[in-house]
Formats: sequence, structure tokens, C-alpha cells
Amino acid sequence: MRTTVGIIGAGPAGLLLARLLSNVGVDSVVLESRDRAYVERRQRAGVLEQGVADVLRAAGAGERMDREGLRHEGIELRFARRRHRVDFPALTGGGAVMVYAQTEVCKDLIALQLTEGGPLLFEAEALAVEGVTTDRPRIRFRHQGGEGVLECDYVVGCDGFWGVSRKAVPARLSRTFERTYPFGWLGILADVAPSQDELVYARHERGFALLSMRSPSVSRLYLQVPEGTDAREWADEEIWDELERRCETAGGWTLARGPVTAKSVTPMRSYVHEPMRHGRLFLAGDAAHIVPPTGAKGLNLAVGDVVTFARALTHQRRTGSAELLDAYSRTCLRRVWQAERFSYEMTMLLHRAPDATPFDDRIQLARLERLTTSRAAETDLADGYTGFPLE
Amino acid sequence: MRTTVGIIGAGPAGLLLARLLSNVGVDSVVLESRDRAYVERRQRAGVLEQGVADVLRAAGAGERMDREGLRHEGIELRFARRRHRVDFPALTGGGAVMVYAQTEVCKDLIALQLTEGGPLLFEAEALAVEGVTTDRPRIRFRHQGGEGVLECDYVVGCDGFWGVSRKAVPARLSRTFERTYPFGWLGILADVAPSQDELVYARHERGFALLSMRSPSVSRLYLQVPEGTDAREWADEEIWDELERRCETAGGWTLARGPVTAKSVTPMRSYVHEPMRHGRLFLAGDAAHIVPPTGAKGLNLAVGDVVTFARALTHQRRTGSAELLDAYSRTCLRRVWQAERFSYEMTMLLHRAPDATPFDDRIQLARLERLTTSRAAETDLADGYTGFPLE
Repeated sequence: MRTTVGIIGAGPAGLLLARLLSNVGVDSVVLESRDRAYVERRQRAGVLEQGVADVLRAAGAGERMDREGLRHEGIELRFARRRHRVDFPALTGGGAVMVYAQTEVCKDLIALQLTEGGPLLFEAEALAVEGVTTDRPRIRFRHQGGEGVLECDYVVGCDGFWGVSRKAVPARLSRTFERTYPFGWLGILADVAPSQDELVYARHERGFALLSMRSPSVSRLYLQVPEGTDAREWADEEIWDELERRCETAGGWTLARGPVTAKSVTPMRSYVHEPMRHGRLFLAGDAAHIVPPTGAKGLNLAVGDVVTFARALTHQRRTGSAELLDAYSRTCLRRVWQAERFSYEMTMLLHRAPDATPFDDRIQLARLERLTTSRAAETDLADGYTGFPLE
Repeated sequence: MRTTVGIIGAGPAGLLLARLLSNVGVDSVVLESRDRAYVERRQRAGVLEQGVADVLRAAGAGERMDREGLRHEGIELRFARRRHRVDFPALTGGGAVMVYAQTEVCKDLIALQLTEGGPLLFEAEALAVEGVTTDRPRIRFRHQGGEGVLECDYVVGCDGFWGVSRKAVPARLSRTFERTYPFGWLGILADVAPSQDELVYARHERGFALLSMRSPSVSRLYLQVPEGTDAREWADEEIWDELERRCETAGGWTLARGPVTAKSVTPMRSYVHEPMRHGRLFLAGDAAHIVPPTGAKGLNLAVGDVVTFARALTHQRRTGSAELLDAYSRTCLRRVWQAERFSYEMTMLLHRAPDATPFDDRIQLARLERLTTSRAAETDLADGYTGFPLE
């Protein structure tokens, strides 16, 4: 099998890339190790930056998002029994985000790909990426009981943190940057209308809490828990009680409860692999970098990467110049490190470390206080939340 | 001996307070354990916030400052061989700082106090503050071989971190917040014109460096060194070489060298004591809080405290209401914690911790990069540097 761009992984990065390439007449093949039902069920992030929503629209994948997604023009911070709203449009000159689950983005892109895109092979497990420093890299993969080879001009690894793509960059050329956090997020999905219109980020001595939503009738709620917590340790009522406690306000406040339909723990990690390109292999999304979920940058970063690749390839085909392809790693990493910084700082602003000293607590409160009194500090946060520019 | 306000310590806080009180017709006595020559020689900070310079002017102590001080409208950040100027007036709507050494502020205030102020006793060592929850607190002190008692309406402890004032707040009512840093500053004074017009804050893999000045002919320069370093371990030439290396730029740059006239190591510490008031005892400046020197907030915070006290006492005498005196601790601590946050963040932005990971390094560089690309982030820094509002 032969194609121009071999794409490993049918998450949002791989699927969107196939769509972007198809829109400019470049053929591609997507290999996905899981089956379609699994991909369409996988719970991930749910907040799209303004620029990312625009990319989906421009790619022709924004119709249902614009119908069912929820445009959010702010978030609420809660701390010390206070509430403070961050008004995105007022601070950023019109910025906002779109609450629309990653699963839904994937469903929309899969449907498009299957009706009008190139080949998308489910249960096609990439085994290795080879020859990336030659003109003709190859992806070896297993599919329907046999082994296949996909010959490409370029390989884009969108196969996540555990995928094979990154392994094709020789260790001697690689540098990795990593931080793990001594806590995770216990997340639930619940069949109940959200108690608030916008996301609530709460800093509390007992730990962080986040009130979010998937739709007007489905709430998505999170609690900071110690690293290694088993979700089954938490009874549903305990979770509701704890969410309510951590989001307490001086004016009093109650949380609407409903049946919990999913419960799981997400570990927290920051990770970057440099470079993001080696020869004709390009890493995108979680294959190259992980952010902790605070601030919801993961999906947005992945979209940034594939937009950068698609532009660079288009430039190369139009002008013959590989300069943007050659600059791929540098271009992406600038945005990646800003998102890593933002996610790290949001995490440190709101979570309580198990070894936090009273001084650390006060500094955290002083940072939150600063956000409520300095337009500059608040604008810096709002700019980061609504999105770093796509390049 | 009897006075309205007994002031312990003739550093800038105590001396300025005596001046502010004298200007509104309130009598005070200042007790200072050291002799005048020592106080006038003690090397400390040298950057006055705009609001602090205004307070000195309004108090009638700004004449020499305005003649000999250097108005600075920016600082330079150096990192990754780059230089970036932070333009204070452009970012803050006119803000700037005044470079004028603390020693000089003290000299000016001592001269004023001795000619037109109340009693200022040198070599008068406060031994204890007593009866602070009664109407008539007392300072016991040793002077000229004997013991004396100063009876007051109010006692203001401006006697620094090691002073006796803070000990008069019962431990059961006190909370302390503290952070020490695994590095210090090796500082030199040198008889050479500064190589640059403004302060240079440099972040380098080898550690932080700061190029500062005392006057147009005296440079003040600092290097981050490991905690516990003995200044004698560093030969003068090694210091100059290291300063030049840490401040390197892509365009090349050399540092003017000259005779080193002083060399010492300053430890780095963050410390806050709460509350700052107990009964009729009010703590001000280093007696209540310490900041690491990055960003030069120590003297400025001390001035903020005594301005707050003087205003509160004036309010009480004019209206009979003690509400501002009662709010002293809360009012000061709001500003103190913002300065603690600012100093901590400036420190963490620019110093290299001995256990810094490659991830930490990249986050630091991403923060610096953010300052050079986001007007909001840069404004937040400039606002903090030029000063938090005096209340």
C-alpha cells in the first residue's frame, strides 16, 4: 500500500490531519489499532480553544459542534469561599472557548472520513516506523490477521504517549522533559443538568475540584485525589459531598446531584519529547507531549501540531520549499512549551500538594487574589485559556 | 520617659515613621541599638517604588533623593543569550522606580530627625516590650550603662527580623510562614561606572546574576551562589568573569571592571509573621516579614507598613475611631502577601535551583519567553516591580 502521508492513530489529531490534507488534495491513510466503537467512546477533554473551533469549522467538521457545543465566555474561580468570574471576551477582545467533547469531535471526523475521505483502517496496529531518514518511510502494521506495509512520503505519528512512532526517533537525538504530580483527578460523568453555566475551578484546602459539563443534561465533575487512588474507593455520595464542600461559597451553594454513569482516575503528568520531527517522521499530539488536564490543553495542542504540519506540507507542494517542514519541530515546540507552562501553572495554582507548607498555601491564595485585582494578571490567564495562536 | 509612639529601630521604617508622625504633630521616641555610624553604613536595598519615593518627598525627605537618585524607567531581562527590556512607563501608564540606596535614605532621615524631630537615641537597646494589651505599653531598654523605661500609647516595632518586638506577640496567637532557598547572593560594590543604564536581571544555566548600581560611579553586582557560600571563596577576577558569562548575549557584551570595595553573601528567605498587630504593638518592616532580595521589595514593604500605621493613627486622632488601627494587620498583610508572591516568583523565574530538572529549566524559559511576547504578562511584572498601591 502506498500513500503520501501515512497517519498513525485515529484520535482527533490523526483524523483532523486526514481531513485537512484531503481538503487540499493530498492523499493519506489512517491506521488505528482500536475498533471504531472504542475510539468513539474514549472519554477525554471537552474544551476547544477559539482557534481550534475555527479550524474544525474551516475543515468542514464544525456543523454539529456549532449546533450542540456550548460557547463559554468565562470560567469561575472559587477560593477562600469567594467566587470570581474571568470574563474572556472582555479581557481578550472577544475570545471564548467551545465546550464540546473530544469523543464528539472524533465521531464527526470519522463520519466525514468514511464518507468522503481516504482510507481509515480500524484494528490496524502499527508495529514500527522504518526508513524515516530515507525518501520513502514505511509503516509496518498488523491488520485482519496479516502484516502489511504502508509506504509513504511522510509519516505523522498521532498515536499517543504509548504509541510506536516516538520510538523511531533515535534515543541519542532525543531529549525528554517530564514532571509527574503527586495527585490525580477522580472524574465522574453524571446524568444531571450542570449546576452552573460555566466551568468552576475551585481551590480548597482539601484539594482541587472542577465542575464541568458535557452537554446541558450531562455533568462532568472532578476531584483532586492522591496519586494511585482507586476510583472504587469513592462512593458516589462521598464524591458529591466532597465536590460541594470544595466548591463552598460564603453565600452558600448546593450542587445538583444525579446518577453517576462513569467514574475513573486520571493521573497527572507533564511530558515533552524533543525534537518533534526526525527525517520524514513528524510527531503530533500526545505522541510528543502530555499536559496535566488543568486548563484542557491536550486536544488543543494536538490540533495545533497537525495544522502546522498541513500548512508546512501545503507550502512545500506550492513552492517546492521544505523550510516550513524543516521548521516543524521548532514551530510546534514554541506553542507546546507555552501550553506546558500554562497547564503547569494552572495546576500549581489550584491543587494542594500533599507536602504544601503554610507558606505555599498563602502564595497560592496571593496568586488567586492577584487574578481578582490585576487586569493584567487576569488577561494573561484568559489569553492562555482561550488559546495560544496557531502558527 | 513618656511619648505617644515608641518606635524601636532606626532603620528606614522607624525613621520614616518618626518623620510622618512629627509632620502631623504626634510625638515619638526612636530607640536604636546600634550607633549612628553603623546605621548609616549598613548596605541594603537600593530600589524605591514610585509610591515610596512619593512618600519620602511628601514627608520632606526627598530633596537629595531627587538630586542624586537615578530614575529608572525599565529593567533588562537576559536569558538564552537574548536581551529584553521591560518598559515601565509604557506598560504601567507612567510608572518608574528610583535607584537610591537605603543607606542614603537613612542618612537623610537621621539628619532631619536630629534637626527638627523628636528624640532619637542611638545605642539604646530595647530589651522587652511589655503591657501591649493595656492602655499604657512600655519599652524597657538599656542606654548609657543604665536601664530605662519608655511609656507609650503605642509601640511600633521596626527592629528587624532579630528584634525583640515580635516576641511580645504570644506564640499561641502567632502564625509564621517561611521558605528558605538553597542559594544566596554574593554581592560586591565596585568603584566603576555601571556598564548599563538600567538594572539587568540575568537567568543563566550557571545561575542568576544582577547588574545594579548605587550611583553613576559605583556598581553593585550580584551572583547566585550556593547556600552557605563564604564570600572569601571568590576572588575578584572570578566574580567579574562569572558576571560576564551569566550576562552573555548573542551580540557580545563586556562588563566594565573596577576595584571591589565590599564583598558579602546575603542569604535568601521568605518569612511572614501574622498578625502584625497585637493590642497596642504594631510590627513593621523586617520585624514582621522578610522577602528574598529579587525585585527589591524589602524597604518598600517597610515603608508601606509605617504609612499605613501613620494614616490609621491620624484617622483615630481626627475621628476618634480606631477602625483603621484595628485593621492595620489585615491592611498591611494584603500588600505584604502580594510582595511576597512577587518576590518569590521573581526569584523562581531567574534562579537555578540545585535540583532543577530539565523540565523546570524549560518552564523557566517558557515564562521568560511569555514575558517577551505577552503584553499582559509583561504588564503584570511591571506593575509588581514599580509597586503595589500604598493603602
